[in-house]
Amino acid sequence: MHWSRWGDPGHTGTLPEAAIALLELAFGPIEPRATIPLEDVRLPPARLDAEVLAAYVGVVGELNVSTADEARLRHTHGKSTPDLLAAREGDFAAAPDAVVRPADHDEVLAVLRLSRTLRVAVVPYGGGTSVVSGLSADGTTFAGVIALDLARLDHLLAVDVVSSTATLEAGVLGPRAEELLAEHGMTLGHFPQSFEYASIGGFAATRSSGQSSSGYGRFDSMVVSLKVATPDGTWELGVAPASAAGPDLRQVVLGSEGAFGVITEVTVAVRPVPAERAYETWRFASFEGGADAMRALVQGDVNPTVLRLSDELETAVNLAKPEQIGSESGGGALMLCGYEGTEQRVRRMREELSAVLRERGGTFVGEQDGRDWAAGRFSAPYLRDALLDNGVLVETVETATTWSNLPRLYAAVQEALAAALTTEAGAPMVLCHISHVYRTGASLYFTVAAKELVDGRAQWALAKAAVGDAIVAAGGTITHHHAVGRDHKPWLAAEIGDQGVAVLRAVKQALDPEGILNPGVLIP
Amino acid sequence: MHWSRWGDPGHTGTLPEAAIALLELAFGPIEPRATIPLEDVRLPPARLDAEVLAAYVGVVGELNVSTADEARLRHTHGKSTPDLLAAREGDFAAAPDAVVRPADHDEVLAVLRLSRTLRVAVVPYGGGTSVVSGLSADGTTFAGVIALDLARLDHLLAVDVVSSTATLEAGVLGPRAEELLAEHGMTLGHFPQSFEYASIGGFAATRSSGQSSSGYGRFDSMVVSLKVATPDGTWELGVAPASAAGPDLRQVVLGSEGAFGVITEVTVAVRPVPAERAYETWRFASFEGGADAMRALVQGDVNPTVLRLSDELETAVNLAKPEQIGSESGGGALMLCGYEGTEQRVRRMREELSAVLRERGGTFVGEQDGRDWAAGRFSAPYLRDALLDNGVLVETVETATTWSNLPRLYAAVQEALAAALTTEAGAPMVLCHISHVYRTGASLYFTVAAKELVDGRAQWALAKAAVGDAIVAAGGTITHHHAVGRDHKPWLAAEIGDQGVAVLRAVKQALDPEGILNPGVLIP
Repeated sequence: MHWSRWGDPGHTGTLPEAAIALLELAFGPIEPRATIPLEDVRLPPARLDAEVLAAYVGVVGELNVSTADEARLRHTHGKSTPDLLAAREGDFAAAPDAVVRPADHDEVLAVLRLSRTLRVAVVPYGGGTSVVSGLSADGTTFAGVIALDLARLDHLLAVDVVSSTATLEAGVLGPRAEELLAEHGMTLGHFPQSFEYASIGGFAATRSSGQSSSGYGRFDSMVVSLKVATPDGTWELGVAPASAAGPDLRQVVLGSEGAFGVITEVTVAVRPVPAERAYETWRFASFEGGADAMRALVQGDVNPTVLRLSDELETAVNLAKPEQIGSESGGGALMLCGYEGTEQRVRRMREELSAVLRERGGTFVGEQDGRDWAAGRFSAPYLRDALLDNGVLVETVETATTWSNLPRLYAAVQEALAAALTTEAGAPMVLCHISHVYRTGASLYFTVAAKELVDGRAQWALAKAAVGDAIVAAGGTITHHHAVGRDHKPWLAAEIGDQGVAVLRAVKQALDPEGILNPGVLIP
Repeated sequence: MHWSRWGDPGHTGTLPEAAIALLELAFGPIEPRATIPLEDVRLPPARLDAEVLAAYVGVVGELNVSTADEARLRHTHGKSTPDLLAAREGDFAAAPDAVVRPADHDEVLAVLRLSRTLRVAVVPYGGGTSVVSGLSADGTTFAGVIALDLARLDHLLAVDVVSSTATLEAGVLGPRAEELLAEHGMTLGHFPQSFEYASIGGFAATRSSGQSSSGYGRFDSMVVSLKVATPDGTWELGVAPASAAGPDLRQVVLGSEGAFGVITEVTVAVRPVPAERAYETWRFASFEGGADAMRALVQGDVNPTVLRLSDELETAVNLAKPEQIGSESGGGALMLCGYEGTEQRVRRMREELSAVLRERGGTFVGEQDGRDWAAGRFSAPYLRDALLDNGVLVETVETATTWSNLPRLYAAVQEALAAALTTEAGAPMVLCHISHVYRTGASLYFTVAAKELVDGRAQWALAKAAVGDAIVAAGGTITHHHAVGRDHKPWLAAEIGDQGVAVLRAVKQALDPEGILNPGVLIP
């Protein structure tokens, strides 16, 4: 992963010509922005002394404790736009004092015990793809902060073919998980935008949801059992596919973002690798009409593997296909449908879907756009780097609500973003799609682009505050699949109530009385 | 509801001739057992004085506070076999001191505030169908105990047709919920064995699962949002169909059995009333073969609305059709399949299922048995009363595990029940069926009958202890859909770990610092 950009450092990340034309039309002349060279970055001095470091070395070995600048720098930020802007400016004030890389659950446990004794804060680090400031601990009241890098917990520990489950260590990244499962003819089917760099533990800790969640379900719904390292010892949860043995405490660990314990192993429901995959697109006259059709699908139990509907503007700029941004689109609202499974099931799903969509005014476009989307599905984040290079501030906002409240929430977010980000250069470009549908409602995923002002971080902070307020006021969830981190904390109490906050605090106190686990994250 | 039996007091509850013959063959001559007449029952004196009662009257009105013996008696026990045996013996030592019937959420809140001040324990009472001693509070450290009867919270508060949700008050009973929803063309589709007498709030508080859960899902999966009265005020949860805003705290309230707050309103996902319903049975050579076929169905995404597979003994005694118990059966293991939905969907489900089951050696039997089951699906509990009348101890045990562990768990429970309940009269009869299937595993539901000894409660207590130990040792959940109450508490720590217990205690302390809510339930 690049230290200040998304993904593969070898990726060119240049803007297509058509996109540049579109941006100049919207925001005026492109003004390239510089980024600090890696060698010029200065970190705050590491606070942990030799004795403390030796204690960690005693647990994980010398090769797995690092205070080198580059190691610390690479574990400072996630991948939100403010994170990237901070990195581009060379702001690594939040760098951990050391990076510790345990080999397995027992070493994680030992690191936590040690950290408790030493009063060192611990930030669990999986793939480093947080977009909610989930990785930058405030260590001021501690002796120091370590990044607990789980990269060495990268094994497939067990496969139960009969029960269709697999136990994966937390540090396994998305592609590696699929590789390991494919050896057993299995797939997890979890493909969030961050797939190529995000980890199994991160999926669990943040309640991740993927592009194929319509078919495979959200990550939380796949979790059968969890192994968690807490400062007080090992916590194992989940002995059956379902239970009435009190509250489902797996659901307390899922979404806990490292504040209650370190998830070290996850047993997930898996599926056979699909024999067939097909993607196709449909066009609707309007976003509203397309959304109605989506609702008819899910409420009629027609659930393809992938469902995504772009609004008119997102359709017009071809956001789903970065390399074609700005080129001619067919207008209206484009719906992407993907099918995975046996040949028979794919055929049946397509037939059922086709009947519903035609009845609702949809027009079949073809398979090419869908195939293009599937081929480039993980490349969108590279586009953001190219835009930032050219002085265009771009970020995403996501939420969810009931079907009946969707139009209100859609309008509220649009308005808040427009009001907060309109500059002398013009209004922001706000694109939206629905990518996760449920019987009772759906998610909204906004991409917003605006001319970057001198202080892009401050510019976005104001917009983020406005849009958070707007989401809460319009009855949406503050996050459908990005988690809380530090960025969404100001609105969590409004969503879960004072009692909800009291419950989170009580759970934290019970499991982590010294508060060493990812301090400052999640809990208001 | 009858005060010492299941259900409608007008139900005859006599044993079929064939059943008597079968029982005499198994356990020797039938020996009828007497039950105490209602008028002979003596309750302990009510502890709450006039001033305290007047305070409750001030909140809910004079008509809705009762200290009458019959009101107290009817709110003492649930409907487990030990509960029925206690009632038959006239043991109402655990009677609440008063029954308080609030009208709505605000009155529930006010009752809780008052009870906190007065140090009175509060036991939420929905339909009174608990089978885990969820209703009998130990009030010794309190000024008294009230049963908080939610029967007046019996309204459908809202229907959102677009979002396919409905908001029901907690006291609405199963049949009334279906009646109210049917006026809008909707159904909840939640049909547990207790359906006719259980309440919406109870379904939520105990993580209920119904006979149609294969198609409609468990009750917890239907819950969109919850309104909870806590001693400290109102707690509302759930603003979107799915969220990543931290741990899913709805899942902490679901299954909390009145220990964290009183659930007063539940917003659930609903569905259109099915145009078509069909039931049919299939026969397999063995329980094992049938279970394999069930697994093939669910892992192949073929999910009929109802799926139930009886083991060889349950098939042989026709337990699924109480009026035919003991009469000739076709042998093997009988699978019941139910389909609900549009005509097209029912046809398609039947075709898909048929292909899988034939491939796995299933033989189609016909529709008559399935129709009989559907017609008598809620009458099985009456049979238990008839058996108890005749000196036959009968109770149920349920658990769940992964598919690969199912044979081990099945054998372990069988062995434990046989060892604990074999008397001079012979071995117990242990029948089993699978009634809830998941991609990764299934439930096991045992019905056990034995010659009742002089002290049937002590006899069952020993068996329950043995079977609880056996379930935990064999890796099952201590309860798949009956909840914890007091009866499963001894094994909860083994299932959720010391950290899990600490979390439950911490949540309890945060929400109910005086511990007035259903003391003694759930939390070890």
